[in-house]
Amino acid sequence: MRNFLLALAALPAFALAQPAASQSVGQQAAALRDEALRSDTVAWDILEGLTTEVGQRLAGTEAEERARQWAVRRLTALGFSNVHVEPFEMNVWVRGEERAEIVSPFPQRLALTALGNSGATGERGLEAEVVGFDSVAALEAAPDSAVRGRIVFITHNMMPTQDGSGYGQFGAPRRQGPSIASRKGAAAIVVRSIGTDHHRNPHTGVQTFADGVRPIPAAALSLPDAEQLQRILARGQPVRMRLTLTPRNIGRRASGSVVAEVPGSDPSAGVVLIGGHLDSWDLGTGAVDNAAGVSITTAAAHRIMQAGRPRRTIRVVLFGAEEVGGFGGNSIFERYRNDGNVVLVGESDFGADRVWRVNFSFADANSALADRVAALLAPLGIVRGRDRANAGADLGDWARGGTAAIDLNQDGLRYFDYHHTPDDTLDKVDPAQLRQNVAAWTAMLAAVADAPEAVERAPAAQ
Amino acid sequence: MRNFLLALAALPAFALAQPAASQSVGQQAAALRDEALRSDTVAWDILEGLTTEVGQRLAGTEAEERARQWAVRRLTALGFSNVHVEPFEMNVWVRGEERAEIVSPFPQRLALTALGNSGATGERGLEAEVVGFDSVAALEAAPDSAVRGRIVFITHNMMPTQDGSGYGQFGAPRRQGPSIASRKGAAAIVVRSIGTDHHRNPHTGVQTFADGVRPIPAAALSLPDAEQLQRILARGQPVRMRLTLTPRNIGRRASGSVVAEVPGSDPSAGVVLIGGHLDSWDLGTGAVDNAAGVSITTAAAHRIMQAGRPRRTIRVVLFGAEEVGGFGGNSIFERYRNDGNVVLVGESDFGADRVWRVNFSFADANSALADRVAALLAPLGIVRGRDRANAGADLGDWARGGTAAIDLNQDGLRYFDYHHTPDDTLDKVDPAQLRQNVAAWTAMLAAVADAPEAVERAPAAQ
Repeated sequence: MRNFLLALAALPAFALAQPAASQSVGQQAAALRDEALRSDTVAWDILEGLTTEVGQRLAGTEAEERARQWAVRRLTALGFSNVHVEPFEMNVWVRGEERAEIVSPFPQRLALTALGNSGATGERGLEAEVVGFDSVAALEAAPDSAVRGRIVFITHNMMPTQDGSGYGQFGAPRRQGPSIASRKGAAAIVVRSIGTDHHRNPHTGVQTFADGVRPIPAAALSLPDAEQLQRILARGQPVRMRLTLTPRNIGRRASGSVVAEVPGSDPSAGVVLIGGHLDSWDLGTGAVDNAAGVSITTAAAHRIMQAGRPRRTIRVVLFGAEEVGGFGGNSIFERYRNDGNVVLVGESDFGADRVWRVNFSFADANSALADRVAALLAPLGIVRGRDRANAGADLGDWARGGTAAIDLNQDGLRYFDYHHTPDDTLDKVDPAQLRQNVAAWTAMLAAVADAPEAVERAPAAQ
Repeated sequence: MRNFLLALAALPAFALAQPAASQSVGQQAAALRDEALRSDTVAWDILEGLTTEVGQRLAGTEAEERARQWAVRRLTALGFSNVHVEPFEMNVWVRGEERAEIVSPFPQRLALTALGNSGATGERGLEAEVVGFDSVAALEAAPDSAVRGRIVFITHNMMPTQDGSGYGQFGAPRRQGPSIASRKGAAAIVVRSIGTDHHRNPHTGVQTFADGVRPIPAAALSLPDAEQLQRILARGQPVRMRLTLTPRNIGRRASGSVVAEVPGSDPSAGVVLIGGHLDSWDLGTGAVDNAAGVSITTAAAHRIMQAGRPRRTIRVVLFGAEEVGGFGGNSIFERYRNDGNVVLVGESDFGADRVWRVNFSFADANSALADRVAALLAPLGIVRGRDRANAGADLGDWARGGTAAIDLNQDGLRYFDYHHTPDDTLDKVDPAQLRQNVAAWTAMLAAVADAPEAVERAPAAQ
């Protein structure tokens, strides 16, 4: 299998032995791919525009509302059809002041930021002794008496991985730490940011207190500050910290996802549903996470539209409120799941670096289509993976339920340097790698939107 | 000359044709150099200790006082002689709150930090239209009417250079911009940080309003924020900014430099005066600027002390209040200039990356000594430069006045990524490059402290 794919990759994509209809589709897809790689500017323009003219766009705030208005205007101007907002409501948490300092033995300020849904300390802050743990397991194993009334600190050892697999494992201090610390009576919790950089830019991110657990102040230290705190704790003297966090829950607010379509010529052939998320965290301008995915998928769909009417409708969704709980993805799933018309899904939500791998979740009957897509992607340096596609946070429900899915996995080696930090800004995006993404999405869309065979349902996830 | 030096560099340092006394000195210097390169831990321990146990140490504050106490304890414990503080007084400026936001047309916050001696906006801030310039010259050329009542923004195009030469030229917006903008009636000024990184960490630094010029609020935007503001200005609509800076002048306070000595055996042979500066800016922990120089020069002098009594006394000075105006350097110059005993000076104040070049300011009579030093440094990959040594900010008065000087120039390609930012923390230091610095300083000190010939006065600077 591997050698067969290598041999395929060495051939011009349009010379593959295949039925005439798909051969013609392949020729056009390859041409569109190469043109995108050479000269796409649509994605950069969207990325630059959204991050400059809107900037941060925290879910449920007026900034996210401005982002929706911006997107509706831009998608309409680009010629998409049926451009509209799918609204929903959500509870909104907003950041306040955030400060921390070591009071003793070595007085100094530390850089940190509140985690999503963090409790507040009150304006005057709280002061307590710090107790450090090297893992969530170590915190769980500690007696409550070692934690009660203290500020818990948890560190970890996340390193960069190309497939981003470190995020699940090493994200536990952020996701589980606050609830466990609260149950044990901690006054507050600070974690080493879930990231791989060494800058004074802390990484925020969502965490949700378990049912019945009292929200406590919960924050992430920048990585240099977490290492500083570890060095200070290693001196063996009691360490006292003063912590001030004043976030607020501001109640139910409007959010929404922006939808746009490239109409297909054959309504019976089904809809290809793709997109990225429009909201961002509030610290940076959300260039990498996820104006990139918005711009890549929109630019690719636009290229298909410019090339003529595809067989299948392509629906681009710019999801609202992904960061804080995937509310836009849930809303879209509920809106379209019973249409029975969505035959394939894929999200771009892992930055702006190049696509290095493609994974499929396809029925066996569509193996030839998967082969054709993989062959179209190979000239872009993209390997074929063996994992099941999961379609990302916003479209995962579809893939788990058995809708065919394709993941175009982006290189994650730099992703967690910027993820959820003030440092997620336009200058982190490499225009050449962004074009490679557009080329990959364009080729994939061309192949699946015009595939002459039916796109079947895949096996549902176990 | 160049070929001769290349030939020298290819020989083992101790095999140079030279008088027996200096040959023996050269053998010992080479051995001390190689031992430092292999195994020095003294420099790292000082660097780690000062940045962890004190952290930031802004000139004239109680944090700088704690740094002096820390240094006196550490230098005494290391066995130095005559460890003491040379006190002085100074006017002290301290940072307050700092916030900026674009009010229109695209509301968003910007990351910035006040420049030294910045005026204050008051707690309620000020709001004005932004007028942008691409250079100090463009600001100077503008009519006052284009500036009056506005917030001036100046950008620049600084790029990394190994010798750091970009800092002088591209630092003009910070150094001269505030006074020029104030003279023209500006409400405030924000500059692109004088730096070469792309992180949301603004670069502070000193500026001094010219005599008779009203202090105005003056700040540096992080580089991503400066580029964001440029993009926003490029849209061509009026841009309004709200700026809040509340720094304060807190009056005369005590500062001081810490002095320690390795006593020489021959008081008539003069003193070798070296060091780094103990104070730092208040945003990071001052690891690169300049706990590194403190630790490198202290560790090298300590190695000479451990190896036996040198001919010449080595005086290590950890200067106070360098960042805000070189007050410690001035104080030490006034204290020792009339002793007539200091024969050679050198400061380490350009980070912690490897020494790549050596420059001399020597009398012609000492050309053989310069040759021997250069030959000892060549195995560390250090080239011999053709520039006159200037001995750094704290010892420049000596070099300009005709005291012999040696500059061990450090690689500056990363220096202005961290310089004067919150990001100047321990993790930015490469222990192997730090050891190379200690090796270079140890070899140089061994050669000059035990040189059998007199160290003559050099020509004074023109």
